[in-house]
Formats: sequence, structure tokens, C-alpha cells
Amino acid sequence: MTDYQNRTVFLNGDYMFAKDAKLSIFDRGLLFADAVYEGLGLMDGKIADFELHMQRLERSLAELEMPNPLAREAYRDVFQRLATENDIQNGFFYLQITRGTADRNYLYSTEMQPNVFAFVQPQKPVKERNTHLGVKMHAVPDLRWKRRDIKTTNLLGQVMAKKAAHDAGAFDALLVDADGRVTEAASRSFFIVKDNTIIAPPVTEEILHGITRQVIVNVAETDALETAFRWFTLDDVLAADEAFLTGSSTTVVPVIQIDEHIIGDGKPGKVALRLREEYLAMTAAS
Amino acid sequence: MTDYQNRTVFLNGDYMFAKDAKLSIFDRGLLFADAVYEGLGLMDGKIADFELHMQRLERSLAELEMPNPLAREAYRDVFQRLATENDIQNGFFYLQITRGTADRNYLYSTEMQPNVFAFVQPQKPVKERNTHLGVKMHAVPDLRWKRRDIKTTNLLGQVMAKKAAHDAGAFDALLVDADGRVTEAASRSFFIVKDNTIIAPPVTEEILHGITRQVIVNVAETDALETAFRWFTLDDVLAADEAFLTGSSTTVVPVIQIDEHIIGDGKPGKVALRLREEYLAMTAAS
Repeated sequence: MTDYQNRTVFLNGDYMFAKDAKLSIFDRGLLFADAVYEGLGLMDGKIADFELHMQRLERSLAELEMPNPLAREAYRDVFQRLATENDIQNGFFYLQITRGTADRNYLYSTEMQPNVFAFVQPQKPVKERNTHLGVKMHAVPDLRWKRRDIKTTNLLGQVMAKKAAHDAGAFDALLVDADGRVTEAASRSFFIVKDNTIIAPPVTEEILHGITRQVIVNVAETDALETAFRWFTLDDVLAADEAFLTGSSTTVVPVIQIDEHIIGDGKPGKVALRLREEYLAMTAAS
Repeated sequence: MTDYQNRTVFLNGDYMFAKDAKLSIFDRGLLFADAVYEGLGLMDGKIADFELHMQRLERSLAELEMPNPLAREAYRDVFQRLATENDIQNGFFYLQITRGTADRNYLYSTEMQPNVFAFVQPQKPVKERNTHLGVKMHAVPDLRWKRRDIKTTNLLGQVMAKKAAHDAGAFDALLVDADGRVTEAASRSFFIVKDNTIIAPPVTEEILHGITRQVIVNVAETDALETAFRWFTLDDVLAADEAFLTGSSTTVVPVIQIDEHIIGDGKPGKVALRLREEYLAMTAAS
């Protein structure tokens, strides 16, 4: 019995040990990846960007014609209780909603009762990690389906990309689509900085609408930094002054290398580090 | 409690009522769609194309670096016992293998113990259905990921296509990729017949390697019918003499209409019906 199985988790209204939290083999999340999820940061006892994550969750559910089993404030209560019961101040909240349980059939009924579960994983405080020192990424083909804007559990493409990145000694994978466009990382959003402009892909169905991405863009624009939303290639990345990742469990992470190629001067970018500090300060003050 | 929950299913070595068959919320099939599956036909007590399905299962597992928890003959025993215990002579066997249970992390260990489950669904004997009368299909964009050759549970694109087909009053969806190529149906392989040649897409990573497809190609070639493996467009389909589907639970199904467009003379194709009869006779004699 490994440690995580003794944590308290939430399942369909009840709190229980992880080892007791089970769903039917006929759950459509298991049979069809017919499920959406959210991941939120827990930073010094504070839930980061809660409302924005709830907005995205509601959008994902609506795109799939799935009802939302709980109200926003009920989710906040779940997260707070999970943090308290597990005595965790810094970590990652995970919430998943599946379409529900039924005999296997591609066709679903919109009358189905969703299954909902949530758990929290402990993590070191962001400031105690070494990610501000910059990370290396590994470029791989983007194998994912076309509706990346819906945050679903159809994640095997990401799993394969992460494995390839890990085997290459990289922190995350950089996904490059069949047209040569850099879309994002396997589990994070990706930015470059060139000539003092912060550049990210446009918000379409082809990328996940990252919450930390969105907040960082707001921070940058409040700071009167130039932002641009357009597609770029791997060559553009290698010619950039800086690159960085954003994600809910890691905030802002400078990228200093893609495979054997050094980005800029090989040091964490000034823009990335500044945005990171501002994001952490903002979350602490929330 | 609906009926299916009283059926006997197989889970990790045990037989139990469906209502008691549960997996951890930390199963990677549920969290990441990190799972493969097979579907096999049960026809008058006979398991159709067992060896070919096992070959494909082994290939899917190998592509994902997942071990196979059971030997081929053990799977046969499982299917036979499920048919017997549930008193089902005609239906659909479903088998799923997930990478296993662990705290959530994209990275997997190749040392994990897979979870395996199987069930059988009763169906009318193929001959008692009306599918030989021909069906209508509905064309939709192919939203799926790029490794369609691995039979995984990353099926939400197919779920959405099936819903669109159902809403359009169609039997299945016809998937058309961004390059205008017809790949397959949401849950079946797709063929056209033109000038006495049976045409199907080439066997690449872009289509599922359908087992019934493969058997039907062998039957056609044994019959000295011309076969060709090349990409075709929706226009090619509408200009074809015939079209048909193949799948493990439906065998061969003539397609007579795509949305408002009638194919050929609007009647089930002669080649399709001939192949269907031969497939059923072959399975009955196996």
C-alpha cells in the first residue's frame, strides 16, 4: 500500500481513503475517456485562480453536453476540506467529472448522472523548487486530437510525449504539429519572448486555454509589456530571446534549452522571472 | 439497477456481478485514457476471429510499453466463461487493459501491474438484424489523434462523431480528415467498390487496423476480386458503385446513403452482400 492510497479523497459527495475510492468499470470515463478535468495549484494554503478554473470547467462540460454536478462554491469547499483533512499547504488539486455509468455504447444520454471525484497531491512550495533556474525541453510531434480546447482525459498523446521528454532528460515535451507550428507543452502552455514582445499561439481549438497562461498575459499587459498571439515554429523558438512555460502547479518556468539547442544566452529570461515573481506575489496576496 | 449490472463480468482474475466490478479512481485508464481494448463478435456461440484480435491486442500493448497480463488461451477461457455464465449465444465481447493504478503522474513505470476486465453484451444474431438492407451515414470531420492504429480508449472524438450521426438519423459517422481523405467510420472500417475493385485506405497509423476489414480483404482476394489500398475523398465515395462497413459486431453492412447523397442505385451492393454471406458462413464453419 503506497502512501497516496491513505490520503483522503472526494468521490460523489463522500470523503474516504483513496484506497476505497472506486468507480464502476462501466464508467464512461474509463471506457471512452468521456470525462473532463481541472488541475489547480494550492500555494501556502490558497487555491490559485479558482474562479478561472471553474469557468473553464463549465465550458468543457458545456462543449460535451455534460451537466455540472456541483455548484462553484461546493467545489471550493471540497478543495478546502481536502487540503485540511490531508494537512497539505502546497500541492496540486485534481478534479474529474465523467459522464457517468452505463452499459457500453458510444451513444450517451444527456440524462446521465455524472461521477465526480477530487484529490490533492502534496508538492514542495514553488519557491523551494529549482524550476526558476530554467529547464530543458524535448521537441516531439503533436499527436493529440483536434479539440485541445476541451480539457478532457483523452491524454495518451500527452503521456507518450512526457515519456519521450523524460527519456531525453527533459522537463517537458514541446509539441510541434504537422504544419510545423509549436502548439504548447505536454502539460503546460508555452511562450517565447522576441524583441521585448511576449508571443503565444492564438487561443483556438488547437490549444488548451491555459489558466495560468491567461493570468500571465493579464499581468504582462498590466505591466505594459507587448504581447502578440500568433503561431510560431521551432525555428522561431530557437531564435527567441527567451522562452517559458506556464502551468497551474509550476506557475512560470523559464526554458533555456530545446534538445541540444540553447535559447538566448542559456540563462533564465528576465521577462519570465519577472512574471513569475509577480504571479507568486499576486497569489500570495489573494 | 438496470439489467446490465446483473451480468457476470471478469475483473483481474475474478468473476462477479457488473455492479460489484470497480476500479480505483487512480486507475490510469480513468485519469489518462492509458488503456487499450478489443471488441469481438460472439456468433451462435463462436468467438469470431479470436487469434487476430489477440494479435492486435498484443500490438497495441507493445506500442504503449504495457505488459500483457494474460496468455492468449486465458482470454479465450474468459470469453467462453462469460458467454456461458450469462447464457449469451450472440453478442459482443469487450476486453480492456489499463496500465494500472498509481498516484497521478503523466510518467508511468513499465513495472506497473495492469488492470484487466471483460464483459459480454447480448445482441440479436447478425442475420436477424436489418443491416443487410443498407444504412445511411453522416459525414463529419475526423477529430481523432494521430495514432489510430493503436486501439486505445481515447475515444471522445468517436463519441462526438457517433452523437452527430445519431442526431442526423444515421447508422454511423463517416470521418473525413483535414486533407479531405475519408479515413473510416466512427467505430467501423469503410470500403468503396468502383469498377469492380474493392477500395480501402492503406493500413497506416491513420486508421485502425480493423480485424473484420482484414478478414474481408482476405475473403475478397481468395475470391479473386480486385482490391486496392489507397486514400479516397468524399467525392469518390459519392461516385462509387457501392460502399460498405465492416466491424466485429456487425460483420459487413452495405452503405446506401451519405447524408442526402444516394450511393450507386441506392440498394445494398452485390459485392457487400456477397462478402457478408461468405464471412457469416466462414465464421459458422470455424
